Amino acid sequence: MNNLIEKIKGSETIVITSHYSPDGDSIGSSTALYHALRSLNKEVYIIIDDVLPQNLKFLYNEVTINKSDDIKLQNYILVSLDCGDKSRLCCSQSIKENAESIINIDHHASNDSFGNINYVDSKASSTCELIYNIICAIDENLIDKKIGKCLYTGLITDTGNFMYSNATPSSFVMASNLINIGIDKQNIIENIYQSNPLNLVKLIGEVIGTLNVLEERIAYIQVTKEIMNKYNVDFNDIDGIVNYARDIFGVEVGILFKEKSPNEIKVSFRSKSYVNVNEIAGKFRGGGHKRASGCTINMSLNDAKEVVLRETIKYI
Amino acid sequence: MNNLIEKIKGSETIVITSHYSPDGDSIGSSTALYHALRSLNKEVYIIIDDVLPQNLKFLYNEVTINKSDDIKLQNYILVSLDCGDKSRLCCSQSIKENAESIINIDHHASNDSFGNINYVDSKASSTCELIYNIICAIDENLIDKKIGKCLYTGLITDTGNFMYSNATPSSFVMASNLINIGIDKQNIIENIYQSNPLNLVKLIGEVIGTLNVLEERIAYIQVTKEIMNKYNVDFNDIDGIVNYARDIFGVEVGILFKEKSPNEIKVSFRSKSYVNVNEIAGKFRGGGHKRASGCTINMSLNDAKEVVLRETIKYI
Repeated sequence: MNNLIEKIKGSETIVITSHYSPDGDSIGSSTALYHALRSLNKEVYIIIDDVLPQNLKFLYNEVTINKSDDIKLQNYILVSLDCGDKSRLCCSQSIKENAESIINIDHHASNDSFGNINYVDSKASSTCELIYNIICAIDENLIDKKIGKCLYTGLITDTGNFMYSNATPSSFVMASNLINIGIDKQNIIENIYQSNPLNLVKLIGEVIGTLNVLEERIAYIQVTKEIMNKYNVDFNDIDGIVNYARDIFGVEVGILFKEKSPNEIKVSFRSKSYVNVNEIAGKFRGGGHKRASGCTINMSLNDAKEVVLRETIKYI
Repeated sequence: MNNLIEKIKGSETIVITSHYSPDGDSIGSSTALYHALRSLNKEVYIIIDDVLPQNLKFLYNEVTINKSDDIKLQNYILVSLDCGDKSRLCCSQSIKENAESIINIDHHASNDSFGNINYVDSKASSTCELIYNIICAIDENLIDKKIGKCLYTGLITDTGNFMYSNATPSSFVMASNLINIGIDKQNIIENIYQSNPLNLVKLIGEVIGTLNVLEERIAYIQVTKEIMNKYNVDFNDIDGIVNYARDIFGVEVGILFKEKSPNEIKVSFRSKSYVNVNEIAGKFRGGGHKRASGCTINMSLNDAKEVVLRETIKYI
């Protein structure tokens, strides 16, 4: 980490970017690092060429986030956060190419160390935990309530509020320290977990009606295009519904079937303890992790359900 | 805490009991203390004269839990856990009266220090956090995976898995230490949060259909006796549904109306940040806390809704 810190200290202009489809950890780590570097009197830019999620406004309304075309840059280093693959960086090609140096900070196991300097730790809960370590190593006193709020957000969004197995002892110690600093934890919780769109909640109620259990171990829910239209809910906002299927007593695998269009069915898999759903998704040219995976099937909703359930039964 | 530890160390026979309607914190703290005292070669009994929740079986199947009438006791001290009021202790009158001494360990603000020795800390997240402190003070090495599992369960059930404001820096440090000891956190999560009865999930789906929002700040849901019968779901198992109402964007107060019988409506209130729902419940001879309260109204469901909503509007 020392050469990383030396590089940052020795640079005047620092550009921060992250992956497409920004989330709590990418925005949280970007804004936290932004505030810390501003305290060190650096010229700092965050570039995200994508739509920013509404529920993270409480973080990004305290900084300026630019698009690649907004600014003219020269003599800068590029800090890539939470992004395992250079091609998924959410900035223009020229910003990547013209950087004097790229610092790659990430916790994805798939990260191929594409930076000139790499700080990649796949055991870390979140990129925010790595940024916390870096800022502490620079100067512990830099971490104030504003930075703490950003870091706590990434920590909880990437660990399911400490529910997932990636929440390690150090994640809990970090949380403890941030609360000691005086962050308004309840306000963060309200923004992240207690601000569901009414229409989404109504949609959830209706689609739970489609919940079915197969062989006592597989539970599945379907969401048709028609229902998404009825409630005006975006296709990308309904992934969490798969948890209602998984979190039933005795169920090992939860599956969500989402009808993106009449012959394009997105399937999300979640398992609890022993089924490797990465393998099941792999049978349909999808992938992911052992406990969370997905695939796309170009069939009707009913046909997709049939082939996927037939395959899943083999694993329970 | 020293005299408490001396009293425990000097006693041969120790009886542990807790409040009626046992929950994660009462069972978790009772079983944790049981295991620790057994390691110290004490004769230990847990007495709970009530039905034990199914989802906590993974804790109490490792100990013997007695009813008051099961055992003949003499020369014992009684340890009361997580119980603010001697009259709510879940054991017989004679067991309370014949104890040589009562040790009262609790975190409820309302606790009136009814013990001969009292360790009451209303700032503690849970009684499990107090038991953790006590066992650490006796001998840190006593805390093994079995005890850690019990303590972690009480910690997360009383803090909503660290979501509520009572999760303090010391709660997070305790979690970190327990995970370091090697507890199977994911197994605890599975037992507590991922083992919902199928019928309850189906009921939730249906009652979300009754969700309504008033003045953009009040959301309410109703559950009729008929629906509880349809899904064979117990009246006591549906309290959590109120969160679906509160956790909507822009909503400050969530309300759940439960029809216990045709003229007996239980009302649960939850608020996010500024409405004191304890005051609202107080208007109907109920009570609770600022952010969570309840009352019972002897009217029809529709009439109860009308009077409660009319009152609630005054507070937003």
